[in-house]
Amino acid sequence: MTDAVIDLNADLGEGFGRWRLTDDEALLSVVTSANVACGFHAGDPATMRRVCAWAAEREVRIGAQVSYRDLAGFGRRAMDVPPDELAAEVAYQIGALEVFARAAGSAVAYVKPHGALYNRTVHDAEQAAAVVAGVRLAGGQPVLGLPGSHLLRAAGEAGLRAVGEAFADRAYTAAGSLVSRREPGAVIEDGDAVVERSVRLARDGRVTALTGERVEVAARSLCVHGDTPGAARLAARVRASLESAGLRVAAFV
Amino acid sequence: MTDAVIDLNADLGEGFGRWRLTDDEALLSVVTSANVACGFHAGDPATMRRVCAWAAEREVRIGAQVSYRDLAGFGRRAMDVPPDELAAEVAYQIGALEVFARAAGSAVAYVKPHGALYNRTVHDAEQAAAVVAGVRLAGGQPVLGLPGSHLLRAAGEAGLRAVGEAFADRAYTAAGSLVSRREPGAVIEDGDAVVERSVRLARDGRVTALTGERVEVAARSLCVHGDTPGAARLAARVRASLESAGLRVAAFV
Amino acid sequence: MTDAVIDLNADLGEGFGRWRLTDDEALLSVVTSANVACGFHAGDPATMRRVCAWAAEREVRIGAQVSYRDLAGFGRRAMDVPPDELAAEVAYQIGALEVFARAAGSAVAYVKPHGALYNRTVHDAEQAAAVVAGVRLAGGQPVLGLPGSHLLRAAGEAGLRAVGEAFADRAYTAAGSLVSRREPGAVIEDGDAVVERSVRLARDGRVTALTGERVEVAARSLCVHGDTPGAARLAARVRASLESAGLRVAAFV
Amino acid sequence: MTDAVIDLNADLGEGFGRWRLTDDEALLSVVTSANVACGFHAGDPATMRRVCAWAAEREVRIGAQVSYRDLAGFGRRAMDVPPDELAAEVAYQIGALEVFARAAGSAVAYVKPHGALYNRTVHDAEQAAAVVAGVRLAGGQPVLGLPGSHLLRAAGEAGLRAVGEAFADRAYTAAGSLVSRREPGAVIEDGDAVVERSVRLARDGRVTALTGERVEVAARSLCVHGDTPGAARLAARVRASLESAGLRVAAFV
Repeated sequence: MTDAVIDLNADLGEGFGRWRLTDDEALLSVVTSANVACGFHAGDPATMRRVCAWAAEREVRIGAQVSYRDLAGFGRRAMDVPPDELAAEVAYQIGALEVFARAAGSAVAYVKPHGALYNRTVHDAEQAAAVVAGVRLAGGQPVLGLPGSHLLRAAGEAGLRAVGEAFADRAYTAAGSLVSRREPGAVIEDGDAVVERSVRLARDGRVTALTGERVEVAARSLCVHGDTPGAARLAARVRASLESAGLRVAAFV
Repeated sequence: MTDAVIDLNADLGEGFGRWRLTDDEALLSVVTSANVACGFHAGDPATMRRVCAWAAEREVRIGAQVSYRDLAGFGRRAMDVPPDELAAEVAYQIGALEVFARAAGSAVAYVKPHGALYNRTVHDAEQAAAVVAGVRLAGGQPVLGLPGSHLLRAAGEAGLRAVGEAFADRAYTAAGSLVSRREPGAVIEDGDAVVERSVRLARDGRVTALTGERVEVAARSLCVHGDTPGAARLAARVRASLESAGLRVAAFV
Repeated sequence: MTDAVIDLNADLGEGFGRWRLTDDEALLSVVTSANVACGFHAGDPATMRRVCAWAAEREVRIGAQVSYRDLAGFGRRAMDVPPDELAAEVAYQIGALEVFARAAGSAVAYVKPHGALYNRTVHDAEQAAAVVAGVRLAGGQPVLGLPGSHLLRAAGEAGLRAVGEAFADRAYTAAGSLVSRREPGAVIEDGDAVVERSVRLARDGRVTALTGERVEVAARSLCVHGDTPGAARLAARVRASLESAGLRVAAFV
Repeated sequence: MTDAVIDLNADLGEGFGRWRLTDDEALLSVVTSANVACGFHAGDPATMRRVCAWAAEREVRIGAQVSYRDLAGFGRRAMDVPPDELAAEVAYQIGALEVFARAAGSAVAYVKPHGALYNRTVHDAEQAAAVVAGVRLAGGQPVLGLPGSHLLRAAGEAGLRAVGEAFADRAYTAAGSLVSRREPGAVIEDGDAVVERSVRLARDGRVTALTGERVEVAARSLCVHGDTPGAARLAARVRASLESAGLRVAAFV
């Protein structure tokens, strides 16, 4: 990544009704793009409205974090959804969020799949195409995803903007994909390491794989996690370090 | 009703997943306004998409049939939803439908509450105001409802168009409200009577109450039901009779 | 199958709230085992109660038709549910049905997975084991499934009764498994053929594969489908033909 | 209350999937009765299983905390559920929990409605009767509720044990009912006051109303809340104070 601009995105609004998960207000003071849950894995309408209003106030861009319909599994259970159903489900979620984004004077500026749908559309061309079909139904917003994924390829082929992202707190394989969460070392828990990797990913477009190799990662956005204690503080440290390293933190165009 | 134009509306898309209820294609050949279920009492995304496409092809106008969140009860169980939640839930549904209406080259042209929400907002000023707040969040579409209801009053006060409808197959009280479904005679099951009442409501703005009085009903739309066997055939008879009586059947402006 | 006794099972109670699918009363006059939906793909509590009462009146045995949690997809979308969650979900459904079976003077006499869970546990040893773990949590009822499936193997290894079933209206491969519904000829739609195959499966334990080979199928139960028009009539013909052929139609012990 | 024995109950297992709310393990070290959420307002099957196992280990009695079907509203939105549906929904939840209670070597020892269903069945005789009908379907467990409520009256008339409870952290009216949460002072937030009121309620069967009167409250159980920070610590203080005052803390018989 030779670009001097980097976007910071985080998953937000991932409560449901009485339940809260993410520290939305704190994270909205740090990130430049908010992946707002749309009701299928999390995100009741009142929360969606509130998060959109907060995001718009802070000039944070709003994205639709679309998911399988799976509240009980938080969208983490891959599902064999037929393409037509999946496309319609994706469009439904984007439309629902659009109302709250517009009411706040903003708009849904991009789409990012959540959880199991994110992981599945890295490798599954049919579901990737279905998600892209859903995005096209809903207006053809840019798609945020893993560089090299079927999802970004399908988005590009459909004429949508395909934006790659990197994860500062996830281990990479030598091939440039994410180490599965089931394997040891998959998640980087040391804050200093996360901060250092963030700068390296954003400034140099590189990261060291779990097995030691140097890996190129072409990302215009960095994903910071919001569902752990101290998440907002760590995200703020990441942002400060990026800025100290001379990068401009701003939403991708 | 002295106007020579009358709208015909029906509830459509009231299946969910594997289940079907309404004969959507047949009814779309008869009505001028389609109240499309938005997922909270019925209406999965793929069905919503399909019904919107069919409606747009036939130049039938699309309305959002919004409901309490109650698939198990088909939206027929009144709920004490706090106003902020209810407004957001209504907006969410309208936004979701808007995507499919737009993808079909149309738009959500009006909003009509379903089932228990319809009945509750006749008398409950707080929930009526919450529904109207939700409609305003979603763009301020016209609201279709019962003449004299709190819902239409609240819509009018908020600067939205408030459109009254009548029911040809429901008995009226002397005061002009609907006889509760729990009372005998509440639903007119004789097809000839339904047809005759339709003409009288549309042409003269009048109907005979269950107790014999003549009642004035100011309606610009007639609701025909779609969830009974023979519904589409009866709706077609109603339409033919309206036209024979010199009325023009067309969507309300 | 050299045994002179055969069970007939059908999926029942597959409505939800306002929606109906199966002609439960008619089928309960024909079958000897009722696979009752338990609320995860279909089957609201009031329907479960009613179907259990009808089954008990007619001395039809009650089984729990357990599913992935997927009302929108009618349980037909395979899901990657972690084993602990899946086991608990299966047990939950069995327990819920047990209440209605007991209130009707009966009990949950066996468990049969529905739809995608049925198909997945033919080949997926982990999910098969999870289903069996759920059944053991709920009391260790017999398990009904496809002969040769991982599900029946896991049930047997866990000390549960494993009961094989055959499908008179589904085409078989030469290896004795079902031809996928996506392939042409997968479903036998000719009633006469279904009746003839039923007798052959029940009396001789054999069927002719789609590709012409003779296949042995060791089944103590025949599944008849209940969700198509004319299903109850066809099921009655199947039963009459089995009895004419000298078989006794009765629940498996 | 002249009895020297008092039960302590708390709502537990009120997470859902990824979301947590109550500190179940800590509270299970304090209370004698666990009101376990059954999936309709909270409580996924894996959580239900875990909480039942923990409760059984600690010899805490298990009760079914039954609710309206309302995950989005956490069961806090009153619903007009027809009696037959409500009875079946209550029985369904009890049956589902029973599986996990039995698997842990215990049983569902009582039933307590949650949230809006609790409040509604204080005054609504029809819904109270429906809940009791559901409990009878499920085995006729004792019912825990507000002294003087329609619920306890209906339970008693149906031959079930009706057990009254008191709330140490809620203000009472002079008539002995709870001050609505919408009114100022409804919830006692001062820990010392909660502890003192607990002793008075348990030992003397009395409490001071919000308006100063002395009120008699006939309760065999005290409810402590589990969904606030510090809840488990406060519950432990309440228990210690009850024991210091010479009361035996034990499940109601």
